[in-house]
Amino acid sequence: MNFVDKVLAGEPRAIARAITLVENGAANSSEIMKAVFPKTGNAVVIGITGAPGAGKSSLVDKLALYYKEKGERIGIIAVDPSSPFSGGAILGDRIRMATLGLDKNVFIRSMATRGNLGGLSRATVDAVTILDAAGFDKVIVETVGVGQDEVEIVKTADVSVVVLVPGMGDDIQAIKAGIMEIGDVFVINKADRDGVLRTQKELEALLSLAHRPDMWHPPIVQTVATESKGIEKLSEAIESYREFTASGQEKSMVRKRAIARWRLTELLRERLLADLMDRDGANEKLEALSRDIADKISDPYSAVEKMLSVAE
Amino acid sequence: MNFVDKVLAGEPRAIARAITLVENGAANSSEIMKAVFPKTGNAVVIGITGAPGAGKSSLVDKLALYYKEKGERIGIIAVDPSSPFSGGAILGDRIRMATLGLDKNVFIRSMATRGNLGGLSRATVDAVTILDAAGFDKVIVETVGVGQDEVEIVKTADVSVVVLVPGMGDDIQAIKAGIMEIGDVFVINKADRDGVLRTQKELEALLSLAHRPDMWHPPIVQTVATESKGIEKLSEAIESYREFTASGQEKSMVRKRAIARWRLTELLRERLLADLMDRDGANEKLEALSRDIADKISDPYSAVEKMLSVAE
Repeated sequence: MNFVDKVLAGEPRAIARAITLVENGAANSSEIMKAVFPKTGNAVVIGITGAPGAGKSSLVDKLALYYKEKGERIGIIAVDPSSPFSGGAILGDRIRMATLGLDKNVFIRSMATRGNLGGLSRATVDAVTILDAAGFDKVIVETVGVGQDEVEIVKTADVSVVVLVPGMGDDIQAIKAGIMEIGDVFVINKADRDGVLRTQKELEALLSLAHRPDMWHPPIVQTVATESKGIEKLSEAIESYREFTASGQEKSMVRKRAIARWRLTELLRERLLADLMDRDGANEKLEALSRDIADKISDPYSAVEKMLSVAE
Repeated sequence: MNFVDKVLAGEPRAIARAITLVENGAANSSEIMKAVFPKTGNAVVIGITGAPGAGKSSLVDKLALYYKEKGERIGIIAVDPSSPFSGGAILGDRIRMATLGLDKNVFIRSMATRGNLGGLSRATVDAVTILDAAGFDKVIVETVGVGQDEVEIVKTADVSVVVLVPGMGDDIQAIKAGIMEIGDVFVINKADRDGVLRTQKELEALLSLAHRPDMWHPPIVQTVATESKGIEKLSEAIESYREFTASGQEKSMVRKRAIARWRLTELLRERLLADLMDRDGANEKLEALSRDIADKISDPYSAVEKMLSVAE
């Protein structure tokens, strides 16, 4: 059995290696992606985002356990762009693996680093594609924070879940513009805390103001992930949005094309730069020009032109 | 007086227009940046980041007021990547402008959108460059969240401030890997709340484990921004880090070069894609290929090759 077949058969080590190759933009990563792509389209991709401290990891773990007990296979991609090194992330994966049970039916992977030429969002979407092709029923993408990359990643999911906690009045204000766009399902986690009713009311008010072009009314689910409360309700809310989009094929296609366009553009951006940097002396030139900019001998925009003219 | 001279003279409307042109990647934006670049290097750039709900905006406003009362000119760039539209951001700017006092000595601007070809982080750094050239003494860059772009933006600042609030135990765990790298100064805002001591202790413990190559020990400042408490202490902490880096020229140069390299790479990435998309039929080709990917007729990696081969 060759490497790609092992990935498609769902072998954890082959999957892990494929994701690493794609993350690093290895020479054969493009071949791997081409080979797995035709096998995709069966997984339900669930994006889960929210501010740090909202308890996303616990929620994801409990949701994964719930699906696992239903006999499904679950892949988890935990995106942590704030971590420049993968050490902590790997440790975290191991702890979570132990909680979830280390077997073929649950795969967990953190994506923490971003190479010089590679985009974290592109690598994450590729990893989701690999897990989809490897036959996982659910792929959960968990992102910390509400940055631009995270928003783009969550947008590519079939269902996007935004996690809040009680007493985040400021938070809702801070993230409302983006959140209305992203959330198909809202969770108020740590719902045993004070202020849950107020947060529920504030969120309802904000949601009533939002105009979604698809006329979907995002449900709000209260959970206490640490006590496994509300997880079934969350799975039902996710499923109801899935059914809603499945009934409106046309809209879903427009969205799929937008995602494809974004993904193609990201890949082009990476590839064009990689091609430029592959040319003789490109690295030395980049270093020299960076020095000139730092020394204020050149400005960055003139340096770009010098970089491009040398490459021709 | 021509347009660039007006920017350099600090005229708010000219500055606002220059930032818009650069944000949109307008045809003349590269000329503007080349013209302002030689006038830069005088401003102290302060990056302020932290989770949503930490009270960053209040803190930034109070810090700006403090500097203003000292007779300084302050520019503020508020980065909100979670907001896909700028409407809310513009409204927010107006409210903040009213608080800070609308005059030539305070300039505030939100950066919320990111064009198809433009990077938010590149646009933000360009906006900082414009404010620096326009003679502002302090340029404060405020970012929501802890995403990859935000980390990169904050790294380009002269001094990076990370804002926490009491009772964020989970938060500190969630963001510790990134936070140790980024923060030159830490703030515990809302320090009149319960749990401030615990947060202080946890943070001290984490900081004691961190190895900074420059041997700097980041100070922790407690503030209550809404009551203007601790703002002077924060300004002192910022100044102490500034003095520390000023005394170690060599290290600072290495950092400046790294920032220049990152910036040049970002600009190259944008420019290469823009050049490709400028060619005849490129947009139509991109649309057709996006459709093929969505319809699963093609995979994204093969599409990239088709896109590149057509362009030659």
